[in-house]
Amino acid sequence: MGNSERGLDRLDELALVDAGLGFCIDLSAMGFSSSELDGLSDRMADALRQMAELEGGAIANPDEGRMVGHYWLRAPELAPVPEQRDAILDAQRQVHELAQTLRAGGRFSHAIIVGIGGSSLGPQLVYDALGCGSDGLRLLFLNNTDPDGIDRIVASVALDRTLTVVISKSGGTKETRNGMLELRHAYQARGLTFGQHAVAITSAGSQLDSYAIEHGFIARLPMWDWVGGRTSVTSTVGLLPAALQGADTAALLAGAAAMDALTRRLTWRQNPAALLAAAWFLAARDMVMLPYKDRLELTSRYLQQLVMESLGKAEDLDGNVVHQGIVVYGNKGSTDQHAYVQQLLDGADDFFVTFVEVLVGRVGESLQVEPGVTTGDYLSGFLHGTRRALAARGRRSLTLTFERVDARSLGALIALYERAVGLYAGVVNINAYHQPAVESGKKAAAAVLDLQGRVVAALSRQGQTPASLAAVLGEDHADAVFRVLRHLVANGRARVETVKGQPPWRWRYASS
Amino acid sequence: MGNSERGLDRLDELALVDAGLGFCIDLSAMGFSSSELDGLSDRMADALRQMAELEGGAIANPDEGRMVGHYWLRAPELAPVPEQRDAILDAQRQVHELAQTLRAGGRFSHAIIVGIGGSSLGPQLVYDALGCGSDGLRLLFLNNTDPDGIDRIVASVALDRTLTVVISKSGGTKETRNGMLELRHAYQARGLTFGQHAVAITSAGSQLDSYAIEHGFIARLPMWDWVGGRTSVTSTVGLLPAALQGADTAALLAGAAAMDALTRRLTWRQNPAALLAAAWFLAARDMVMLPYKDRLELTSRYLQQLVMESLGKAEDLDGNVVHQGIVVYGNKGSTDQHAYVQQLLDGADDFFVTFVEVLVGRVGESLQVEPGVTTGDYLSGFLHGTRRALAARGRRSLTLTFERVDARSLGALIALYERAVGLYAGVVNINAYHQPAVESGKKAAAAVLDLQGRVVAALSRQGQTPASLAAVLGEDHADAVFRVLRHLVANGRARVETVKGQPPWRWRYASS
Repeated sequence: MGNSERGLDRLDELALVDAGLGFCIDLSAMGFSSSELDGLSDRMADALRQMAELEGGAIANPDEGRMVGHYWLRAPELAPVPEQRDAILDAQRQVHELAQTLRAGGRFSHAIIVGIGGSSLGPQLVYDALGCGSDGLRLLFLNNTDPDGIDRIVASVALDRTLTVVISKSGGTKETRNGMLELRHAYQARGLTFGQHAVAITSAGSQLDSYAIEHGFIARLPMWDWVGGRTSVTSTVGLLPAALQGADTAALLAGAAAMDALTRRLTWRQNPAALLAAAWFLAARDMVMLPYKDRLELTSRYLQQLVMESLGKAEDLDGNVVHQGIVVYGNKGSTDQHAYVQQLLDGADDFFVTFVEVLVGRVGESLQVEPGVTTGDYLSGFLHGTRRALAARGRRSLTLTFERVDARSLGALIALYERAVGLYAGVVNINAYHQPAVESGKKAAAAVLDLQGRVVAALSRQGQTPASLAAVLGEDHADAVFRVLRHLVANGRARVETVKGQPPWRWRYASS
Repeated sequence: MGNSERGLDRLDELALVDAGLGFCIDLSAMGFSSSELDGLSDRMADALRQMAELEGGAIANPDEGRMVGHYWLRAPELAPVPEQRDAILDAQRQVHELAQTLRAGGRFSHAIIVGIGGSSLGPQLVYDALGCGSDGLRLLFLNNTDPDGIDRIVASVALDRTLTVVISKSGGTKETRNGMLELRHAYQARGLTFGQHAVAITSAGSQLDSYAIEHGFIARLPMWDWVGGRTSVTSTVGLLPAALQGADTAALLAGAAAMDALTRRLTWRQNPAALLAAAWFLAARDMVMLPYKDRLELTSRYLQQLVMESLGKAEDLDGNVVHQGIVVYGNKGSTDQHAYVQQLLDGADDFFVTFVEVLVGRVGESLQVEPGVTTGDYLSGFLHGTRRALAARGRRSLTLTFERVDARSLGALIALYERAVGLYAGVVNINAYHQPAVESGKKAAAAVLDLQGRVVAALSRQGQTPASLAAVLGEDHADAVFRVLRHLVANGRARVETVKGQPPWRWRYASS
């Protein structure tokens, strides 16, 4: 019967099961051997030691001089400072009570969650994965400063029955501030008092916090500088929206805590997050996320932030230039088989697929679409078929299996990736908890807005070219002046005098 | 004033405006010079010649022996065969009349679009970009064989007022067939006759076509073998959903036709699709799509299929192994600035960003969120700020600018990418119109389902291990047997006998 064991030996070496969580991680199709994994043992031991220090309250984000405490959110007893423990428990109580109040009596049918990045992606994932409970609010996500996008959201709800939750850790994020001001304007235009429909989640004393006090918000919930935005889904940031939709927040926290317990294991070959991080490291290529379950379609979008913002770094902790990072993309299977899987199979071998398998197809009986075969059998068949087809062409994949999608398993999935990202950062010696480059885009945007202000002030009834305006303004880049002018013209705030035979960057522009 | 011209010279050389379409393509931040572009002139001339042959009716998809006719859909007079021209015009008439009928009288409030790949992605993009007209139907997309996902869609509508549109060019796509059968079951369970709620879009004589006849569908609309799935959005596949939602399908076609006219230009430096294809070729890296407009958020998902399925090829037309392809990812700005833009700025220089700028912020007046500054100004500032921040770090980007998002500009955007993909394929000498590897995943899936059937038949009341079952079945891979068993157990179709101290692939499994 020797040959019939084929495949099982690799599972013995490269797969790990946790019955309590209904979870399995399977690296057997990643194209490396168990002994290649062994080669990472020293590095991984270091990473696990650093992780233990982080959980113990070390300043694990040295650039910003901050502790990194998202793991304490589901194990408050581990928080190094009693005030942190109390703050976590108190905030969870506040979330619970506030959500009960807001869901009671049918006052609100919808909630608009205003936030961006970590203040939106986690709540979006949880909402899409767990859905709206029978007495939960329907959530909408305002996560941009697109006026037309804001108008669409406003037009889709009855504001008198709509709550607004404004989430900004720093309290100063412009997109979020803008969305809030636009919504306030919309409530007012309908004769409604914004504060009576608004909740803020922010750091104490932030601009948003002050605004919420001034405008009599229903409530203010705390955020802390020791929780990063992209790991904030088990804080108030994720818990309030989850509670409003009617999700089981206790189970979400319990699932994360259970995965945290597994991923603290120092015997790293028994630690799923360490195995995952090691797989990423040995693969050294793009991460294609393919959950075969509609509810998990936003997983890749969530991980784009968690993975890419954490690991996409120019320098390591010793100041060496490393340009680290892992590209993450993907939507869901089998849908994506009809999109880009052609390229995965035939194009460059520059990726590994992460299959996320969910064993239970649906609640209740299933129709047979062929004798003895259900739609869920097809979904499973497509997953394993694609896995085989990739392997047959030497393309790598790993598979995460969950019994079902519920609050508990979702918490576990999130915690798994949080820890894997932290351990990977340890292995490659980078700071996973800052985002130093993001500031440069914000500064450049501020410079563009500043230029816009100066251009508007310099416009006159007599037309001027971008070049002449640039000269007047002492602006080096005439093309930047042109871009501002084009934006102003389209929005009725400047006027154009076409110059025949010339492209628009050589036309004349005047005040409107 | 010399220096104040800075930037304009590169626009002269590397940007192209079309006033009629309200469109600009700007390659000035792609890091190459005008003379580097010149180096591509011979290849591009060849690609344009091939494209002209394709439009003239050549067998441009040699592997499948097919003509490639999506450009004729918006210029029927160019179709090489009169029957094709008549078929296009007749189908457009049918779409128009059918949509009018289905939208009249309030019989239907929603439509479920059942399709996958090109039979879903185009309609999804159009629906999200153009929204639901005042008397249009609300669309939902069933694009998978996930039973739970199907249940969610069914639960979200009143089926008695819901139309189902089943789209499958071949008429044999399993996911689509499964979704249709599940929906039929759901209609029947509510005492409704499926056929009275159903429309099919498929090739004449396909399995789906026969099914539609047999079950008395409201209507059947044609598809043709000379239109590929991923370029079918201006065929019946895209037009019927668009017409149902209340979009201006004539403007969608006109916008595509106008862009087709521009992109047929043989003077390739005046041809936006040729410029785009050349930029991809010279960049030779990942394509990050960043439309700064909520309505265009699905652009990258649409392009994942159009670009990756077209260009992700193992061999060129001469049989050389080339492993071509371009990775596409991204969602929207400024939202993604708070997700993965950190990695773009600090990580590996392995991508170029495609900014899609939309000049008009919104319809109507805008609130000032600061003196003289609107949310739309911020959106524009973030786009141009990020563009500058990338450039300052030597990262490449190109910018497509549209006056506004409407049916006409969306048609133009789609046509631009269709042509650019075709021209790029010409430059690298591959067949952009087949998908040879996709079949291998389907075959492997069929093998998994076959194995499942044999496992079910071999299960008995007495437990057997995956290894012993594999031996009985003559199946080489015991791990594959284990995966099937795990799926069956979770769905109540097998029973497990835990073997203490052993992982589940060494447990015993029995009939349930």
